[in-house]
Amino acid sequence: MRPYEMSLTEAADAIRARRLSPVELVDSVLERIERTEPRLRAYAAVDAERAREAARAAERDIAAGRHRGPLHGIPMGLKDLIDVAGTATSAGSRVRADHRAAGDSAVAARLAAAGAVLLGKTHTHEFAYGLTTPQTHNAWDPGRVAGGSSGGSAVAVAAGSATFALGTDTGGSIRVPAALNGVVGLKPTYGLVSRHGVTSLSWSLDHVGPITRTVEDAGLVLTALTGYDPRDPASLTAPATDYRPAAGTDLSGLRIGVPSTYYFDRVDPEVETAVRHAVDRLRALGARLVDVEIPMARYVQATHWGLMVPEATAYHERTLRTVPDLYQADVRVLLEAGELMSAGDYLRAQRSRTLMRDAWHRLLREVDLIAAPAVPATAVKAGQETITWADGSAESVSDAYVRLSSPANITGVPSLCLPVGHDTAGLPIGMQLLGRPLGESVLLRVGHAYERTRPARELARAA
Amino acid sequence: MRPYEMSLTEAADAIRARRLSPVELVDSVLERIERTEPRLRAYAAVDAERAREAARAAERDIAAGRHRGPLHGIPMGLKDLIDVAGTATSAGSRVRADHRAAGDSAVAARLAAAGAVLLGKTHTHEFAYGLTTPQTHNAWDPGRVAGGSSGGSAVAVAAGSATFALGTDTGGSIRVPAALNGVVGLKPTYGLVSRHGVTSLSWSLDHVGPITRTVEDAGLVLTALTGYDPRDPASLTAPATDYRPAAGTDLSGLRIGVPSTYYFDRVDPEVETAVRHAVDRLRALGARLVDVEIPMARYVQATHWGLMVPEATAYHERTLRTVPDLYQADVRVLLEAGELMSAGDYLRAQRSRTLMRDAWHRLLREVDLIAAPAVPATAVKAGQETITWADGSAESVSDAYVRLSSPANITGVPSLCLPVGHDTAGLPIGMQLLGRPLGESVLLRVGHAYERTRPARELARAA
Repeated sequence: MRPYEMSLTEAADAIRARRLSPVELVDSVLERIERTEPRLRAYAAVDAERAREAARAAERDIAAGRHRGPLHGIPMGLKDLIDVAGTATSAGSRVRADHRAAGDSAVAARLAAAGAVLLGKTHTHEFAYGLTTPQTHNAWDPGRVAGGSSGGSAVAVAAGSATFALGTDTGGSIRVPAALNGVVGLKPTYGLVSRHGVTSLSWSLDHVGPITRTVEDAGLVLTALTGYDPRDPASLTAPATDYRPAAGTDLSGLRIGVPSTYYFDRVDPEVETAVRHAVDRLRALGARLVDVEIPMARYVQATHWGLMVPEATAYHERTLRTVPDLYQADVRVLLEAGELMSAGDYLRAQRSRTLMRDAWHRLLREVDLIAAPAVPATAVKAGQETITWADGSAESVSDAYVRLSSPANITGVPSLCLPVGHDTAGLPIGMQLLGRPLGESVLLRVGHAYERTRPARELARAA
Repeated sequence: MRPYEMSLTEAADAIRARRLSPVELVDSVLERIERTEPRLRAYAAVDAERAREAARAAERDIAAGRHRGPLHGIPMGLKDLIDVAGTATSAGSRVRADHRAAGDSAVAARLAAAGAVLLGKTHTHEFAYGLTTPQTHNAWDPGRVAGGSSGGSAVAVAAGSATFALGTDTGGSIRVPAALNGVVGLKPTYGLVSRHGVTSLSWSLDHVGPITRTVEDAGLVLTALTGYDPRDPASLTAPATDYRPAAGTDLSGLRIGVPSTYYFDRVDPEVETAVRHAVDRLRALGARLVDVEIPMARYVQATHWGLMVPEATAYHERTLRTVPDLYQADVRVLLEAGELMSAGDYLRAQRSRTLMRDAWHRLLREVDLIAAPAVPATAVKAGQETITWADGSAESVSDAYVRLSSPANITGVPSLCLPVGHDTAGLPIGMQLLGRPLGESVLLRVGHAYERTRPARELARAA
């Protein structure tokens, strides 16, 4: 196995055992980037020199007995909304052409402290306000969308051009591209990971989280990311936790909710079949399946939009006036629409969110987690604007991709997306596991048990 | 001393020592109500039979050795926004003419569990949306305003027609009438006292708290009111605390901030003099005075209105459409104005609040508390609409009364208002002590030290 093909866990084990040096690993991934980038365009910027220098420093530290843990010497990409001191945060936008981050974001600082090696910044849909990331190509079929908004991060991880990456998720922006590229994405509990230094889309819905090749890897990255941060007003004071999942696959005693409403409506039959097979495998591991009804499902879209649209517009208030022409048309129209919303509309969405969050919390006392499709369809062709469902109804691609993801943003509950197979076109299918607030360990345990029953993952076909 | 003249602490001590029975106390206060109500009109409804029955039950329990604590057998009034099962919550409005509460509010249930005896519901400015309570007359001069919106509660306590009362405070509605009637009012830390079952004015600014004749009494009531309540989304999980202040008056080591900006601007000279005398007394007790600058003072009004107006309108959305004519003109115009506000205006206010709260928290790390006037003027004549200041500027009475109170609502910090003298017209003057989040014990200790250096309080002159 070449170093760039290794999962984070494998690479970390090899580095700890001195079977692999950070320099070899980083060189291997940088070579991989050179090979994959012309077709996939996952990165907005790569700084190979900086990465090599960090790898050499990690190699020296480890050789001197100063091994900092599993992220030490591991090459990774950061979504281009995440500040790193001295580098540009373009947010995928011409509005940010001259931007230079003043300091490290909280997560960049935490990863640096853990010894991770920054390869570069990965492409995002402009200001994270879209579900496709048009700059980037799907890792399994370059003619198809990467998904978004963390499309560059998911494609880089799927293609072996990053050992892991970070994304952000306001309505599904970690989980949608993870699902469409066959990798793992974790949107943590709201407030668990600091957003200080991360460009905001909608502050009451924004989350930062890992994109990795395995569930176990997601646990390793999450462990490094969490911790109270007074600079993020939503930051939680959760106890420090080691999120690396144990190796056991016995799920006896766990109750897994399987939605009888909402999550399997207007879902591609191949997606449904793959997810139901995966759920059956969780039952075979000992879990008990429980039918659950999703509360307030018909308010999901209005609540999500009612919160996101005015918050996004508020963030862009100044530049929307000074440099409106620098925005892409799809993003500008959304931002301008936000100016027409009344305080009453926003407050209705806030009140709906409170009721929905309470109802979800009650539901999640009945079951330990909920298993559902991550997205209702696999990656569509680039440029495709709508999906037509079996019932004859049409839906915009964005609405479809966000539909099953946004409840976790509205309610703040954690959601882990993991690959569960491919459709007949060979495109990856994702399942999400939704858990209780701060229930990440349960999700990672279940997801890891599932992945241990599957054949070894492979890098994306197109990569 | 007749029973109705007793402070809560005195009455509780007498009941515990079997020198006073709850029946005597309640009868005394009910007689006092009959004498004062024709002039003061503090109550929207009094249920003497219910009160006497509760007093007899308390008497029996205490005689049988089941004494529940200092509130057992103590007669009190609840602002008519606070639900009590089976009774009306009129909220001072014709809109609520047919209202009957389905169950007890959290605070009514807690007071009932502590053995307090409900006398009746006290008048509020309609839906708490105003600073005068026009139904009620000032306890020191019936030709002057009671202050609001908890005017009935403050007047009842000042007049001896309740041993204590509860009010609510969204921009000063506990502290303003407390100051104008010479009693003690405590707006606790946001989230410390549950608002379940209390009619909302503006949920991100609303607080429930005690109105009493002494600071010590406020501590006794607060102890009974606090505790986590999942039915209030803002409820905090603070440890159970006995808020009764100790008897010591030594304030050595305490740093008291004295604002050099904002709180003494456009303040009546007699109010300023009385408050500065009171602050000097705190220094004489050992406290160190520190000049402090109030952060973001020029954004206080815009932030308060930007939060309150749309939230209030959202709460009244339905009835404003179905029965607009049932609202008083002053309240209806405010509610209708809220319909014109944009989501952007509201979000600007939310963001300003976040910055202001953070800046206040930083300031309150420099000092232990801040001492300032509670309101810039004493009670104005009924019907007076504006106050003209020494600099020639005019201000509406509502704006003036809310101006020094609303920062504690915006930031959520606790504020204790206590009487510090009278102006030459004989009208009471109030000082407020603002503290750190959950710093109620410090405020009560300082307020109690102050009151122990003063001559015994007396009931209001007009009562």
